Amino acid sequence: MTAPQPSPRINPDRLWQSLMDLAAIGATELGGVRRLALTDLDRQGRDLVRAWLHHAGCRILVDAIGNLFAIRPGAREADPVGIGSHIDTQPSGGKFDGNYGVLAGLEVIRALNDAAITTDRPIAVAVWTNEEGSRFTPVMMGSGVYAGAFSLEHCLARTDLEGVSVAQALAQIGYAGSDTAPRFAAFFEPHIEQGPILEAEHITIGAVEGALGQRWFDLELVGQDAHAGPTPLAMRRDALVGAAQVITQVRRIAAQYPHNARGTVGQLLVSPNSRNVIPGRVRLTIDLRNAQADTLAAMVDDIRACISRIAADERLEAHLTEVVHFEPCHFDPHWVSRIEALARAAGQSVRRIASGAGHDAVYVGKTCPAAMIFVPCEGGISHNEIENAEPGHLAAGAQVLLEAVLEAAGRTATPH
Amino acid sequence: MTAPQPSPRINPDRLWQSLMDLAAIGATELGGVRRLALTDLDRQGRDLVRAWLHHAGCRILVDAIGNLFAIRPGAREADPVGIGSHIDTQPSGGKFDGNYGVLAGLEVIRALNDAAITTDRPIAVAVWTNEEGSRFTPVMMGSGVYAGAFSLEHCLARTDLEGVSVAQALAQIGYAGSDTAPRFAAFFEPHIEQGPILEAEHITIGAVEGALGQRWFDLELVGQDAHAGPTPLAMRRDALVGAAQVITQVRRIAAQYPHNARGTVGQLLVSPNSRNVIPGRVRLTIDLRNAQADTLAAMVDDIRACISRIAADERLEAHLTEVVHFEPCHFDPHWVSRIEALARAAGQSVRRIASGAGHDAVYVGKTCPAAMIFVPCEGGISHNEIENAEPGHLAAGAQVLLEAVLEAAGRTATPH
Repeated sequence: MTAPQPSPRINPDRLWQSLMDLAAIGATELGGVRRLALTDLDRQGRDLVRAWLHHAGCRILVDAIGNLFAIRPGAREADPVGIGSHIDTQPSGGKFDGNYGVLAGLEVIRALNDAAITTDRPIAVAVWTNEEGSRFTPVMMGSGVYAGAFSLEHCLARTDLEGVSVAQALAQIGYAGSDTAPRFAAFFEPHIEQGPILEAEHITIGAVEGALGQRWFDLELVGQDAHAGPTPLAMRRDALVGAAQVITQVRRIAAQYPHNARGTVGQLLVSPNSRNVIPGRVRLTIDLRNAQADTLAAMVDDIRACISRIAADERLEAHLTEVVHFEPCHFDPHWVSRIEALARAAGQSVRRIASGAGHDAVYVGKTCPAAMIFVPCEGGISHNEIENAEPGHLAAGAQVLLEAVLEAAGRTATPH
Repeated sequence: MTAPQPSPRINPDRLWQSLMDLAAIGATELGGVRRLALTDLDRQGRDLVRAWLHHAGCRILVDAIGNLFAIRPGAREADPVGIGSHIDTQPSGGKFDGNYGVLAGLEVIRALNDAAITTDRPIAVAVWTNEEGSRFTPVMMGSGVYAGAFSLEHCLARTDLEGVSVAQALAQIGYAGSDTAPRFAAFFEPHIEQGPILEAEHITIGAVEGALGQRWFDLELVGQDAHAGPTPLAMRRDALVGAAQVITQVRRIAAQYPHNARGTVGQLLVSPNSRNVIPGRVRLTIDLRNAQADTLAAMVDDIRACISRIAADERLEAHLTEVVHFEPCHFDPHWVSRIEALARAAGQSVRRIASGAGHDAVYVGKTCPAAMIFVPCEGGISHNEIENAEPGHLAAGAQVLLEAVLEAAGRTATPH
């Protein structure tokens, strides 16, 4: 039997300072960050994070899509336990989205160093390339290539609006690597919730059960332009009247189905969009999400039937095209339970929660047991310069992360 | 007792040819016309019409807002009977809107000349300046100044997008006149229907009872932008969901109220208009029309109440601004009846009809008894390069016009 070992603690001030230091690179006037993937600002951010991790004793690897891995050695050669997220941002992004996951990983390593703890397995901090997809599509590019969701060649050939390819941009910033990416024994991604639930319920830790499946559609409704004055109701083929009914049905579906159903019409364009002309054409998007694949499929069947009926009633043509199809992701049940238990044991309020958005952990979870830890963000707002989070919540999430990582990596020695 | 006099007849081919000749000025590739008010093309069109009217024996007057009046003398000095419309077009306009009313007037004068008929009162053909309002607002500028709806000074100072004023444009094309506009004993405006009713009912002549009153609004709905994935339904403030309900209520109101109720949302702009962001702001227009002022007021009260309720239900701010308010216009009952009777006596199918749009006759009707004659247009389409009308219908309308004008002006002599 060994004696009880002291519990390593993350340093809240150091975590916060690292977030603020990284946020200075690409800082915007309104307090946000604009650091698009594979720009020189992204390079500056990567260089800073790499230097911190190198100083913390990690060996640095960069793979061919620019994913950066910082490996803290373990007592034995084995697949490391991974922690990570991304540091690229939206054009008007915030300080925490992605950055928190990477710098919580850095803080875990610093805390283990402080306590002179060697884990059985190595620990790796991953910085995934181009999660946001603002400059290059697809989103979650680096973790997607890692997990085999996209081919490396396809992604390297993708170009931005100026025609610069991912391969060129990686070479320009010095992150076109050739190292082999490690496989993980387990992977953890801490993240701000990007939604309002934890804040509204005054809960500090979200044990993320999975990510909602997503089915995205483009819908075009075609009627007939006509003058608003002379054309009686019975002779109208008003595409916007049809679109209004579609929006109402999307909302009804989101309200009616179980398993965290979501339904949103976010984009809508009217043609000719003139005050006194009956709209002959409307294009709109439909975004349906659900935690369960069969329920999501039923939601899709439902809106398809609604659109057919509305088009017939309003004498419109309807053209529906599916543009994105992500199946629901279920994180590793063992680690979801353990995160919940570790948070509770630490005296934190905790609830299970679904991620409404995609994250790198969704792809990485195809290769190993994975889980996420959510902390609240102010007003549920992200992808916005006013994105904000409380230092205490960020620290609490990092502490739960540290304990989960220690459990997954195994603790072999304490200092004397 | 005098012997029965021969009935003068308009010449369908000559009328059609004049329409085609005028349509050559500013002709577009798709068969339409682009001849914006007070451009050099408008000058060319005015010069051609003025020359035709001058050759037909008319004296030409031009007033300070550029309205052109061509007076065919009568047997006595008296207020003339007016006929007219406009020859400016929409940016993608057609051959008939406005032009038909002016050239039907020319054809009436030519037909009277052919039959050597002198009327008791003079007859005047009016070409009103800037009816369309595409280059300069307000619409129906020339007839509005004539009727005292706008001041001359206000309209002369209005500018186009390049900063050119109406006064400058009138001077540039040589139509800044100084003549006093005549007052009319009666005024008639023939026009294509710009709607689908006559065509659908296979009716040739519309005896226009009046023009619908118009109440136009801008509505801004403000909620909160939020991510489409993480935000549950109960926490959303989705401005587009609110807008959809407004659109549905506008349509319900148009269906429910009597007296040719119309309701249209023609323009709608979503912000931020991103596929996976719940819309925090929507701006839309509401166009309500009715033939009766009290019914129109009730429609406005109804939509105001709906908007208040929807805003409360969806936790949105709603800002409603009225931007146009035209009271319903009722044309002179005597002349509406006479047009109906004259059409029937000529063997034409005829029905009473409301004008959904505004016309110069609405303003001129504030100064004298006025009426309009509608003929069908293909598919009810106008303000479009594919605007079309049948020569036989145009001729039938001009013949009814001729007979109404003869009745209003009085017939004094036949040739020997």
